[in-house]
Amino acid sequence: MSLNANLDELDKKILNALMVNARVPYAELAKKFNVSAGTIHVRVEKMKTTGVILGTKVEVCPKKLGYDVCCFIGINLKSAKDYPSALVQLKALDEVVEAYYTTGNYNIFVKLMTRSIDELQKVLIDKIQQIEEVQSTETLISLQNPISRGVHP
Amino acid sequence: MSLNANLDELDKKILNALMVNARVPYAELAKKFNVSAGTIHVRVEKMKTTGVILGTKVEVCPKKLGYDVCCFIGINLKSAKDYPSALVQLKALDEVVEAYYTTGNYNIFVKLMTRSIDELQKVLIDKIQQIEEVQSTETLISLQNPISRGVHP
Amino acid sequence: MSLNANLDELDKKILNALMVNARVPYAELAKKFNVSAGTIHVRVEKMKTTGVILGTKVEVCPKKLGYDVCCFIGINLKSAKDYPSALVQLKALDEVVEAYYTTGNYNIFVKLMTRSIDELQKVLIDKIQQIEEVQSTETLISLQNPISRGVHP
Amino acid sequence: MSLNANLDELDKKILNALMVNARVPYAELAKKFNVSAGTIHVRVEKMKTTGVILGTKVEVCPKKLGYDVCCFIGINLKSAKDYPSALVQLKALDEVVEAYYTTGNYNIFVKLMTRSIDELQKVLIDKIQQIEEVQSTETLISLQNPISRGVHP
Amino acid sequence: MSLNANLDELDKKILNALMVNARVPYAELAKKFNVSAGTIHVRVEKMKTTGVILGTKVEVCPKKLGYDVCCFIGINLKSAKDYPSALVQLKALDEVVEAYYTTGNYNIFVKLMTRSIDELQKVLIDKIQQIEEVQSTETLISLQNPISRGVHP
Amino acid sequence: MSLNANLDELDKKILNALMVNARVPYAELAKKFNVSAGTIHVRVEKMKTTGVILGTKVEVCPKKLGYDVCCFIGINLKSAKDYPSALVQLKALDEVVEAYYTTGNYNIFVKLMTRSIDELQKVLIDKIQQIEEVQSTETLISLQNPISRGVHP
Amino acid sequence: MSLNANLDELDKKILNALMVNARVPYAELAKKFNVSAGTIHVRVEKMKTTGVILGTKVEVCPKKLGYDVCCFIGINLKSAKDYPSALVQLKALDEVVEAYYTTGNYNIFVKLMTRSIDELQKVLIDKIQQIEEVQSTETLISLQNPISRGVHP
Amino acid sequence: MSLNANLDELDKKILNALMVNARVPYAELAKKFNVSAGTIHVRVEKMKTTGVILGTKVEVCPKKLGYDVCCFIGINLKSAKDYPSALVQLKALDEVVEAYYTTGNYNIFVKLMTRSIDELQKVLIDKIQQIEEVQSTETLISLQNPISRGVHP
Repeated sequence: MSLNANLDELDKKILNALMVNARVPYAELAKKFNVSAGTIHVRVEKMKTTGVILGTKVEVCPKKLGYDVCCFIGINLKSAKDYPSALVQLKALDEVVEAYYTTGNYNIFVKLMTRSIDELQKVLIDKIQQIEEVQSTETLISLQNPISRGVHP
Repeated sequence: MSLNANLDELDKKILNALMVNARVPYAELAKKFNVSAGTIHVRVEKMKTTGVILGTKVEVCPKKLGYDVCCFIGINLKSAKDYPSALVQLKALDEVVEAYYTTGNYNIFVKLMTRSIDELQKVLIDKIQQIEEVQSTETLISLQNPISRGVHP
Repeated sequence: MSLNANLDELDKKILNALMVNARVPYAELAKKFNVSAGTIHVRVEKMKTTGVILGTKVEVCPKKLGYDVCCFIGINLKSAKDYPSALVQLKALDEVVEAYYTTGNYNIFVKLMTRSIDELQKVLIDKIQQIEEVQSTETLISLQNPISRGVHP
Repeated sequence: MSLNANLDELDKKILNALMVNARVPYAELAKKFNVSAGTIHVRVEKMKTTGVILGTKVEVCPKKLGYDVCCFIGINLKSAKDYPSALVQLKALDEVVEAYYTTGNYNIFVKLMTRSIDELQKVLIDKIQQIEEVQSTETLISLQNPISRGVHP
Repeated sequence: MSLNANLDELDKKILNALMVNARVPYAELAKKFNVSAGTIHVRVEKMKTTGVILGTKVEVCPKKLGYDVCCFIGINLKSAKDYPSALVQLKALDEVVEAYYTTGNYNIFVKLMTRSIDELQKVLIDKIQQIEEVQSTETLISLQNPISRGVHP
Repeated sequence: MSLNANLDELDKKILNALMVNARVPYAELAKKFNVSAGTIHVRVEKMKTTGVILGTKVEVCPKKLGYDVCCFIGINLKSAKDYPSALVQLKALDEVVEAYYTTGNYNIFVKLMTRSIDELQKVLIDKIQQIEEVQSTETLISLQNPISRGVHP
Repeated sequence: MSLNANLDELDKKILNALMVNARVPYAELAKKFNVSAGTIHVRVEKMKTTGVILGTKVEVCPKKLGYDVCCFIGINLKSAKDYPSALVQLKALDEVVEAYYTTGNYNIFVKLMTRSIDELQKVLIDKIQQIEEVQSTETLISLQNPISRGVHP
Repeated sequence: MSLNANLDELDKKILNALMVNARVPYAELAKKFNVSAGTIHVRVEKMKTTGVILGTKVEVCPKKLGYDVCCFIGINLKSAKDYPSALVQLKALDEVVEAYYTTGNYNIFVKLMTRSIDELQKVLIDKIQQIEEVQSTETLISLQNPISRGVHP
């Protein structure tokens, strides 16, 4: 079990605010939560130190960057013990944005983003299926992504 | 096809920097890319206006918040046309963080995060399977998530 | 068993030529096969009468007409006896270009062409899955079509 | 994305007419659409040059030519990277009229036409399964083909 | 467990001979096995009484009778408890020559013989799939039947 | 297509009678069908010559012979081209009473009869799975066989 | 997470001994582990109180009691929300010795023991499949059980 | 078929009592069943000799010992004949508490208990999938175990 970071109500409020907008001034948060800006600063630093906050990043729209195709690919390997070496080769492909080792019958389950169906075809035939360890793949193309959000603190 | 936002090299450099750290001062970026801080500001505002940048958010560690279990659930409905109504009910569950409509044979494919195997059981039996439209579910628990990153601008 | 149309060698030569170019002048074929143009005419008419030749048509390039997405969809119905009524509703959809009743476990197997992934999503969610009889669908998107040709006479 | 050939209404009308009967005289089309025969000629040539029209061909009835059995075959290979070499060998078989690389879990998906169940057996056992790269096949025999038509311009 | 009929060596020899040719005269068997014809008669009658021998029948060649298509059909019902009523309706179809209740995931597994692919289509669409209880079917057509023989006594 | 043996009504009546009881005297059939015993003899001989009648055999009860377990086994091979060599080895096993090459995704589909679940285990582990070419097997045990009969002439 | 019962080395030694033979006299254990019999008694009572030890029972041999058939059955329900009511009816069947709610695509997964294949057939057809909520079942018969043991303290 | 141990009513009563509590004094059973303590002793010894009673053991609570995760794993091997060697390696893993050879399409089906999802991941990736013979695994995690009991004597 992971160690829960023992967040109190103020920590959670700060976190919720930063999960919506990471650039909000601490002074504004201080006023809103009726504490000093220093307190906000201390709390944020503590959450960085304990690893609750991993960083801040802008959220970009993949479609606006031209990434029209999002899909999940179940990969079957010729041998279960090839998992680590196949993973290294998948990591080298920019299009592979997530990879999972799951309880299902795929050896590896990945999420892939490409600019078009044509590019998906090239990544599959010329890159993923060229990996010696791969026996076959099954691709689920996402046609709609109606829910996309984070966990609650 | 989505309209590509026609980003030039400077836009991409700024975006890459903000995808790593959203709170970096514009002055620092200006110095690094040899332009004025005003130029950085203009470019960022333009990318917000065109929808390339959706916002900024802190990245939290789900495990540190106590979310130990991450899984994908393929949901089969009794009738394909129940997709919209089932979706509304899934959206009301905080544990469902992502939902996809895919080309595969599941009617809905969701990503779920819970604090424990016990909580997963409760969400499945007491919440998801109580949805009238659901015939059955198949759950793939993620045991390892070795790749997790965004697309390149 | 279908009645074979008892084609002789000349019939087959003419057919092969017309399968490549349906507008070739009969005089040209006559010269090539060392018979009179009248003979060519008689043979072609005979093959139309017996139903070997169904017609002539221009072959268009779907991609040039904007049809970027070609896919096969396996449709599962709630009840096997709904096959005829489901078929009528599929026939009303322009995007459904072929439909098959096969020995596999899908109730109906169709080929679909759409202009984009977005249009595919709309056809699936708003049209095919709105058909009361449909329980679920499984979509195989064609990423490459390296062989496409007719049978030999 | 494919370049759409920017067809205007007249182009589409001509195309629709030729998709029904490729041998219709241009004069007839000219009269019908209230333009000169020269205009029809120019438009058709333009559509040939841009690749919208690939050619004209007679449409034959496979059953009348004795092709009683139409089936789809999902082919599983021993190794995903054998796709190109397996494809070359499938292309050499006249009975394989279409081949697809799809998102599904088959490595190759082909359409096959044979004169009888006996011939299908011979093609499968003596030809397709003799291909070194093939691990197994799954055959869906088409028992009925109630929809078969082209896309709309 | 079934009661084994306690056959001795002579019983088994007689049975083996009759399994090859049921019309062989008892006198011939008597001579061959060095016993009296009466003994043969007594033994055969005993095996009829105990139910080891169910009868004698000519073995016909289905292909010579025009039965070209032999297939196995896995039938899925809407409800497991419909098994008896679905079975009654399948029994009324001459084409269904064998039916099994198995440990697999089909509700009923049948063997079917028809004169042609066309007749198979009619039996499936117009008869089996008209049975109210049937949700779907999966058909395995036998392309070759290289082993077909009985058990050893 | 197989050559139909062109049976007339008398042939069919004789065949139907012999399919129920192969030892019925010709004189009895002659009387029943209002023809001479010689005619019956001639017709039966003709049907033997044309291959409609393959022979006569006693029908035994497998359960009475101690064969309690009847099952179907789908066999997956490592390589499709190993079908002939795997078949030879299966033919050498008495327990394999039928074998089929089908359109389904198994490389070979067999029917097996054994005296007990224990014997089934031994045949599977010690015989079938010892065949070098076999990758895996899936066994459907028949728990009930409510229909078992022949085709109609 | 379950609360670990915080067993020390002596607790574990006692537990290991009792897991092999529950009737061993405490005096013998005391001598073996160099402590007083009272200590053994105190420790065992504590492990009973904390729920580590649930009880003692004789281990019987199912085969000796005539239970020849052990199988796993995956049960598919018509509706996921019928899980609790289907479970109540399964609990009423003595042959169902274990039941699981798993991440796989079965709604319920049970372990069943019967005296024979015939009894298995009766339980499936006359009991489990009579449960209104059940759509279908898939049965895996255990042919060999080469490992069967408990966890280590 | 296993030899049934021919238990009479008294044997069954004693067995039922011991299956609930293995440490109950024989005197108490004697009084309850109205026989002498010696009779109880004789009967129990006889059931031990015939193998009906395999031993007595304390029943421990896996969750109290920290075993939070119980799952079933279907293992697919590269070759069916590797079953014995794969089994030896699985037996060496403490986490594998049960193993079955079943009629389903897995080569081996095991039950596994681990202290956490993290430990499950380690056992799968570092132990089971390191076994050379394993091609892939499919894991069903038990989320609830509502029935767990023994057979009736």
